[in-house]
Amino acid sequence: MKRHDTAEVFLGKLGVGGSHPVSVEAMGRTHPSRYRDTLDEIRLAQEAGCEIFRLAIPDEESLEGLKKITAESPLPLVADIHFAPQLALSAAGSGVGAVRVNPGTMGERAQYRELVLRLADYGCVLRLGANAASLPKAFQKMKPSQALVCCIAEWLEEPLKLSFHNIILSAKSSSIEVNEEASRNLSHSFPYPIHIGLTEAGEGTDGIIQSTLGIGMLLREGIGNTIRVSLTSSSPVLETQVGVGILNALGLRRRGFQIISCPTCARKKGDVVLLVCELKKRLGKLKQTVPLTVAVMGCEVNGPGEAREADVGLAFGRERAVIFSRGVVVETVPHREGMEALLESIITFTPPAGKQLQHNS
Amino acid sequence: MKRHDTAEVFLGKLGVGGSHPVSVEAMGRTHPSRYRDTLDEIRLAQEAGCEIFRLAIPDEESLEGLKKITAESPLPLVADIHFAPQLALSAAGSGVGAVRVNPGTMGERAQYRELVLRLADYGCVLRLGANAASLPKAFQKMKPSQALVCCIAEWLEEPLKLSFHNIILSAKSSSIEVNEEASRNLSHSFPYPIHIGLTEAGEGTDGIIQSTLGIGMLLREGIGNTIRVSLTSSSPVLETQVGVGILNALGLRRRGFQIISCPTCARKKGDVVLLVCELKKRLGKLKQTVPLTVAVMGCEVNGPGEAREADVGLAFGRERAVIFSRGVVVETVPHREGMEALLESIITFTPPAGKQLQHNS
Repeated sequence: MKRHDTAEVFLGKLGVGGSHPVSVEAMGRTHPSRYRDTLDEIRLAQEAGCEIFRLAIPDEESLEGLKKITAESPLPLVADIHFAPQLALSAAGSGVGAVRVNPGTMGERAQYRELVLRLADYGCVLRLGANAASLPKAFQKMKPSQALVCCIAEWLEEPLKLSFHNIILSAKSSSIEVNEEASRNLSHSFPYPIHIGLTEAGEGTDGIIQSTLGIGMLLREGIGNTIRVSLTSSSPVLETQVGVGILNALGLRRRGFQIISCPTCARKKGDVVLLVCELKKRLGKLKQTVPLTVAVMGCEVNGPGEAREADVGLAFGRERAVIFSRGVVVETVPHREGMEALLESIITFTPPAGKQLQHNS
Repeated sequence: MKRHDTAEVFLGKLGVGGSHPVSVEAMGRTHPSRYRDTLDEIRLAQEAGCEIFRLAIPDEESLEGLKKITAESPLPLVADIHFAPQLALSAAGSGVGAVRVNPGTMGERAQYRELVLRLADYGCVLRLGANAASLPKAFQKMKPSQALVCCIAEWLEEPLKLSFHNIILSAKSSSIEVNEEASRNLSHSFPYPIHIGLTEAGEGTDGIIQSTLGIGMLLREGIGNTIRVSLTSSSPVLETQVGVGILNALGLRRRGFQIISCPTCARKKGDVVLLVCELKKRLGKLKQTVPLTVAVMGCEVNGPGEAREADVGLAFGRERAVIFSRGVVVETVPHREGMEALLESIITFTPPAGKQLQHNS
């Protein structure tokens, strides 16, 4: 899957665009004035795989918290500001990696010019992000996917006049089609890295499905340098997990374990659901590891086949469970010993030469 | 999104392929000898949107249950049989809509010929499905996506000799890439409807993401006439919900409500998470409805924009919540009355002319 060429920018030490891998962004839920809660959110998100953390800065009160957060945050921050250009100016000097500007809520161009100059002073990235639901009035009559790109083009004039190129772009919508077309147009029109995501994707399973399609199909085209999954949820952890899951599934990053397991049916010879849930819990505690594929299969139809293909696998038979490692039967054990035998094989698994060790953070 | 042309077959009264919409299949977890439990599973899956129900028939004991199940099942059934051709012969005469045959586990060609003749007698569909993890030995050295198609081609010889065309094909793998390529090759090589799905996608969020990508990207190409999501889970309901969600998200079917809601952040003026969860519960009880888009937004950034675009929407403001219907402000209410006002607007919503009424079953 060839990535679109883009310029490269840095959020703190994190490279975005160019040859850097696609990174996962999440957004905080707590008010930054409760800075300890926000820092907890950041650490939990980081543990789940988040690499960029966005924070809404809705008022003056947030700025005090923001300084404390930037001082301690293990992740680069993006300050998200609407309706109050003065807040954006202050945030630019507070140690964040980027300030997100929405053309629909930014106000006067003069203030925008001042902001770009300030961002240049502090080596901050301008995250210029338009949204179909908050386009400036002048663009509201156009076809949305086109309006988003034209709006971005207009708001790029000022930075370009100032020879400012430290920019990441986004153009989002809650419609998969509009979102896709707008991001594709952005990517074909400008040389800057693109942040992608579907806005307001909703809650639960439906939200995960919408986001996976909206983001996944663009990534498959090679478009997108950072991603954010917008799920209605009280914590940024789930959206991080989904973001990491999308990159894993597309082979753009490989972190942690990939578990292949059967849906179970009337043929199952052992309790696959229970074993997989328990296995996930136990694997979550293994901090450092290779990106391993583990198969757990309930019967003899596809069981041995999948288990053979996996790095490590278990297939239930009528009497015993068979443990495989890279195509070789390691042992057969009674069902009740399957879990421990599988874990033992995972822990002692030696990756073949060339398979790189990776931190499972 | 143009669909690939395919022949049309019928599972009971349900048309598959041709100009019929893509339908959702799910698979039972209980042993068919516990036929009342199986019928409960079928009814729950149907309520979630399932249209075809697949049952593993692992032994003689299952056949007795199968007869009782076919007599009462509200959905057409597919009997899934491996290693025991004799069971397939018996199942063909039991009132099922289709018998699923896996070339890797079917056994002798003579028995297969007998089965095809039996299927013809009973007007049953042959669901010929190969799986990368259980390919016949002769194909195991080939590239898997090619092996799957060659294997299907070989197993089509017998039915074609007998002028039997009542066929649905599938070629699955637990690898998104292999799965996609194999299904695409099938679709380009044969005129029959294609059943798609990613096998052994795993559990939880990762399983949903893998399946959504594996199935969604094929559907986007116009490939796939029935879909099944294979999630490690103790019930067929979740896999049905995910299948329905994929079709909804791609606009291939529209059932029930589409909820657009923001992820919430430090700007939120009301409890979006709570409202959406409660709303979903209440909407679940509304049985008959139009496919409606409902927006729930936490603040003034994208709130009014999304709420205006939706059929019905609520956007929280600092003091009050605004209820919109198709771009028109219906009323503003105190936050605590938002839920009831939104529901009222949903119930009284009159679809514009041309928007078709649909059962939300």
